[in-house]
Amino acid sequence: MRPVFQQVDLTDAEVDVLEARYGPLAAALRVLVDATIRTQADDEVVAEALASVEHATALLAPTMIEGHSGVHYTETGRSWSWGNAAIGLRNAVAPPMEVVHLSTDVTRAEVHLPAAYEGPPGMVHGGVSALLLDHLMGVTASRMTQVTFTGTLTLRYTNPLPLGDVVLDGWVSGSEGRKVFVKATITGAQGVAVEADGIFIVPSWSV
Amino acid sequence: MRPVFQQVDLTDAEVDVLEARYGPLAAALRVLVDATIRTQADDEVVAEALASVEHATALLAPTMIEGHSGVHYTETGRSWSWGNAAIGLRNAVAPPMEVVHLSTDVTRAEVHLPAAYEGPPGMVHGGVSALLLDHLMGVTASRMTQVTFTGTLTLRYTNPLPLGDVVLDGWVSGSEGRKVFVKATITGAQGVAVEADGIFIVPSWSV
Repeated sequence: MRPVFQQVDLTDAEVDVLEARYGPLAAALRVLVDATIRTQADDEVVAEALASVEHATALLAPTMIEGHSGVHYTETGRSWSWGNAAIGLRNAVAPPMEVVHLSTDVTRAEVHLPAAYEGPPGMVHGGVSALLLDHLMGVTASRMTQVTFTGTLTLRYTNPLPLGDVVLDGWVSGSEGRKVFVKATITGAQGVAVEADGIFIVPSWSV
Repeated sequence: MRPVFQQVDLTDAEVDVLEARYGPLAAALRVLVDATIRTQADDEVVAEALASVEHATALLAPTMIEGHSGVHYTETGRSWSWGNAAIGLRNAVAPPMEVVHLSTDVTRAEVHLPAAYEGPPGMVHGGVSALLLDHLMGVTASRMTQVTFTGTLTLRYTNPLPLGDVVLDGWVSGSEGRKVFVKATITGAQGVAVEADGIFIVPSWSV
């Protein structure tokens, strides 16, 4: 099954305008997600905050698109996935992570993970490490050009990963036909926390 | 390093009061997260929604605890982790998933995954499957009594997983000393999407 990447008829400047419109709203929402976890406000204050949240939703909901956000690109090749769970600019579930290509085969991401990404007390959830590694490794496997899907992912948890600033490193370690082999790590205040090996598949429809 | 699970001096009824206070706020926030991804509102409307979000934060922030939410339990053995990235009642990043023990060695979770959990267009992010599987498998490994940490996790992606309703199944497949072996799947509208094998470790300080 081939997913639908939608080409849209927008200039880069028009995409910039949309990012400037919706990005700050999602950023503010991330701060509110954090406050909702950590507040000790009483019933009355929480009721007022809830009314504010519902007011914001009532403003935004009438113009919502159907379904999901999707992946879009323009004629110039610029692409975005604003609803993506790992990198989505408009998605308060995403930290959001930004993956940088240091070279065709090497990637890096620096991410701040606050209280909303907790698993064991004070530590990043092991599954959040898996989410971010999976995404970064997929981007790594793409080598900036090809579409890939996760085939197999193996994660070895070697150290706790305290909440806060973390760094992910990814690199292509080989390829074989439509398979791309990728390695990656996520590192925090107590050293390398997870080592990952992935096999990513270039779908037959794309080659 | 032993994580700190904090015992608190609350009755179950008092915990219920706190869940009833903060749970609906996080639930409303999840709806707003979705609207923020999918709205097509214009600058003026988005500015008003942003002001509402900032107002809610301003109400909640002055009473925030330091750091993170943590894992708490009462004298009766009731425990909760409201900030957890997979299951946290007060965490709008979490769907939240609720894991049920069908028996000591068998678990299940039914989760609805809306647009905020997207990876490929219309599909659940492969890393979100990893996050939820890791969490459910950790709960499975606990056998309702023991503390465990993820050692190794292997995920085989076999089918796309459309956004919407998904089911996770987990079961203990064996054990060896302080290692617990767990298998799990996540299943959606196109069948089993990911098959997972995990080795979970019972920390030496807990036995």
